[in-house]
Amino acid sequence: MKNYYAEIISVGNEVLAGQTVNTNAAFISRQLMDIGLQVFWVTTIRDTHDEIIFSLKTASKRADIVLVTGGLGPTPDDITKNSICEYFNTRLVTNSSVLGDVDKFVKSRGFQLTDLNRDQALVPESAKIIRNPIGTAPGLLLEKNNIPYFFLPGVPREMKYLLTESILEILSSKYDLPKIYTKLLRTTSIPEAKLYEKLEAVVKKYSKFELGFYPRYFGVDIRFRHQTKNPDELIDFENYYEKVKKVVAKYIYSSRPIELEEKLGELLKSRQLTLSTAESFTGGLIGDMITNVPGSSEYYTGGAITYSNESKIELLNVHNSTLLEHGAVSEPVALEMVHGVGNLFKSNCAIATTGIAGPGGATPNKPVGLCFIAVRLNKKEVVKNFNFGTERRINKLRGAVAGMEMLRRTLLDI
Amino acid sequence: MKNYYAEIISVGNEVLAGQTVNTNAAFISRQLMDIGLQVFWVTTIRDTHDEIIFSLKTASKRADIVLVTGGLGPTPDDITKNSICEYFNTRLVTNSSVLGDVDKFVKSRGFQLTDLNRDQALVPESAKIIRNPIGTAPGLLLEKNNIPYFFLPGVPREMKYLLTESILEILSSKYDLPKIYTKLLRTTSIPEAKLYEKLEAVVKKYSKFELGFYPRYFGVDIRFRHQTKNPDELIDFENYYEKVKKVVAKYIYSSRPIELEEKLGELLKSRQLTLSTAESFTGGLIGDMITNVPGSSEYYTGGAITYSNESKIELLNVHNSTLLEHGAVSEPVALEMVHGVGNLFKSNCAIATTGIAGPGGATPNKPVGLCFIAVRLNKKEVVKNFNFGTERRINKLRGAVAGMEMLRRTLLDI
Repeated sequence: MKNYYAEIISVGNEVLAGQTVNTNAAFISRQLMDIGLQVFWVTTIRDTHDEIIFSLKTASKRADIVLVTGGLGPTPDDITKNSICEYFNTRLVTNSSVLGDVDKFVKSRGFQLTDLNRDQALVPESAKIIRNPIGTAPGLLLEKNNIPYFFLPGVPREMKYLLTESILEILSSKYDLPKIYTKLLRTTSIPEAKLYEKLEAVVKKYSKFELGFYPRYFGVDIRFRHQTKNPDELIDFENYYEKVKKVVAKYIYSSRPIELEEKLGELLKSRQLTLSTAESFTGGLIGDMITNVPGSSEYYTGGAITYSNESKIELLNVHNSTLLEHGAVSEPVALEMVHGVGNLFKSNCAIATTGIAGPGGATPNKPVGLCFIAVRLNKKEVVKNFNFGTERRINKLRGAVAGMEMLRRTLLDI
Repeated sequence: MKNYYAEIISVGNEVLAGQTVNTNAAFISRQLMDIGLQVFWVTTIRDTHDEIIFSLKTASKRADIVLVTGGLGPTPDDITKNSICEYFNTRLVTNSSVLGDVDKFVKSRGFQLTDLNRDQALVPESAKIIRNPIGTAPGLLLEKNNIPYFFLPGVPREMKYLLTESILEILSSKYDLPKIYTKLLRTTSIPEAKLYEKLEAVVKKYSKFELGFYPRYFGVDIRFRHQTKNPDELIDFENYYEKVKKVVAKYIYSSRPIELEEKLGELLKSRQLTLSTAESFTGGLIGDMITNVPGSSEYYTGGAITYSNESKIELLNVHNSTLLEHGAVSEPVALEMVHGVGNLFKSNCAIATTGIAGPGGATPNKPVGLCFIAVRLNKKEVVKNFNFGTERRINKLRGAVAGMEMLRRTLLDI
C-alpha cells in the first residue's frame, strides 16, 4: 500500500511576528494522522505573491496533498487568491452560492454586506468550493498534476470546521487509506519513566503496535495506534490494550479524552455524593477546576480558601493548638481542614490542601513544594504528604491534581 | 540601511505529528524583532538527512541568518549532526569543554555519564560552541557563504536560554542593526474595536510609528515599536505614547508586562489593604489567580466559594428573603455577598461574583452569561452587571478579570 504524505503551508504575518502560535498545524497533523495520512512538512510564510508561488511549487515536488491555511481573509488586495489563480492558471469570479452564504452570515450578525464581504465571494473559477457556514471565507479545493490543494481560512474555529466536516471525508474517499485504530488511556500521578518501567515487558512483547506516552501537566496519556487493512489483527491489538490497562490500572482514570475533574464529577454524580474543598496551598484552583465542568453545581457545594491561620480556625474549626504545635503546613492541620470543611458545607466528600507553594515561605524543616493533602469520604479521612517542585504555579496545579486523584482512589477504594 | 531576514527551521517529528505545538518559533520571532531582525520563513521538517540538507539549501538562497531548533538531542543515530557536517563539509569531533559541561550537568542531577551523554560532546569540528549550562546539548554556530547558521536544542527552556544569553548578542554585534524602541500599555475591560475607535485620531496623526493591538483573554495590549538610528525621533515617539496613555487612561492597568492580579497585588500591598473573595460565578478562579502571585498571602486573607444558596446564607450572611425575592443571580445578592465576605475574612477589600456561567441554568429573564459583580473597599460598595458569552470557561475568565478590574478602579477612584 502506498503511503501518502501531506504538507501544510501556513500563510500568516502574525505567526511570523511571533504574535500567534501556529496551533492550526498541530491540529491538522493529528486529524490527518487519524485517517492514515502523515504530515511531513509545515512551512510558514508571509502573505506575498513570491513566497506563496515558491511554497506551492516546492510542496508540489514532495507532497501528495497540500493544505494551505490563512491568507483568505477580507483584505483589499487579495494577494493569496490572486497568487492561487496564477499558480493554477485560472481567474477570480464571483460565486453566487458563496455570496449567498456570506450575505446570510453577515446578516445573522446584524450587519450589512460591505464591499470587503463581497470580495469574499470572489473565488478561483476552477476551484471546488467547500462552503463555510460559520465564517465569511469559504474553503477551496484545486488540483494540479493530480495533487489536491486545499485552501482554508486561518481562523482556528473555521479551519477546524471545514477540516472535520468536509475535508477529511474528501481525502478518505479519494485515497485508498489504511484504517487507523486508536485507543487511549489517561493516567495521572505517575511519572512517564515509572509508567514505562512498569509496562516495558508488555510493550516489548507487542512491539508491532505503535504506543506513545504523552506527558501533560495532569498526567501521562498512553496512546495506542495501529494501521491495518486486516481486522483480524485487532484481536491482538485489543489484547495489548487490556494487558496495559491491567498493569497500570490504579493510575488510569479514563479511556476517554476527559479531564480528571470531569471523571471525579461523574463518580460523585453517579453515587449522589457532594463535595467541598478547603484550599490553602492551591488557593482556589481545585474549586476553579471542579466548576469548569458544566453541571458541577449538582455535586459541588462550595469551598473555603483559607489563606490565613485565622480563617483556618474560624471557618474550618482547625485548633489553635494544632497550628501552634505542628504549624499550618502539617498533616494534623490538613486533616482538621478536611474534617472542618466537610462539616461547614455539609458534604459527603472533601479535599483539603496546605503547603508551601513558593518561592518564599520555606523553613529549615519545610522546603518549598512541601504539601499535605487530605480527603474525606463520609467518616473516612486519608492524608498524604507530597514534595512538589519550586515553581509556584506548577506546584498549585500538581497539588490540585493530586487532591482530586486521592479522592478518586478513595471513592473507588484502590 | 539593509534589512536582514532570518529563517527558522524546526526539526521535530513530534511537532509534525501534532503532539507538540511549535511555540519556539513564536518566541524566536519576537526576540529577533526586538533587535531589528525579521523572521520571514518558518519551516518544520522531520529529522531525516534529505530534509535537513534540502531545508538548509533552500534557506541559504533567501535568508541572511538561519536558526535551526531541535534534532540535537541524545539519539543514537545523530542524523542532524551528521547532516550538518555534510552540509558544512566538516566532521564530528569530541569537544572537551562540552564533555566537561555535560559531565557536570549530569552529575549535578545525581546521574553518571552514559555513552549517549558522551555523544552530546561530539560536535562539528568547524562549529563555534555556544555552551549550555542548563542541559546536555550545546548550541552550535557554523557559517557558509557569509550566512550564520545557529543550531539550538528543541527544549524550549534551553533554546530560550541560549538565544537570550548568547545569540542575540552575537547577532547584534555582527550586524549593523537599527535600534528598536518599544513601549507597552496593557489595557483591560475594553474591546479592541472600541479601543481603536477612541485612539483613531491619535494613531493617524502619528502614523510614522508602528502601533499594534494584541487581544488577550485578559484585555488588549497596545504595543508601540519604532526602528531608528536617530534618537531625536524619540521625543515624538514619547509624545505619541503619552497621548495614547491619556486618551485611554482608565483602561490601562500597567505599562509593564504584568498581569492584572499582580497589579492589584501591588496596589493592595502599597496601601496595606487586605482582600477576600466570595465566588459563585467564578468558582474559585479569582482566588486562584490572586494566589498565583508570589507573596499574595501578605494581602489575601481568603475566600468563600459559595456554590449553593445554603452556603451563601450560612457563610456570607446573605438573607434568605433576598434570595427568594431576587434570585441568587441578582444585584442585591452580589452586594450582600461582598459585604458578608469582607466581614467573614475581616478584609478591607472584597470581590463577589454571582451569575449563570452556562451552558445550563438560564431562565426566561436570566440568560447564560449574565453576571453580577460587587466590590468593596472599606464601607464603599459598588455593583455592576455584565452579559458575557455562552462559553462557560471564557465566562469565568471574563468574570474574574472584570471583578479584579472593578476593584482596581475603585481603589484608584477612576
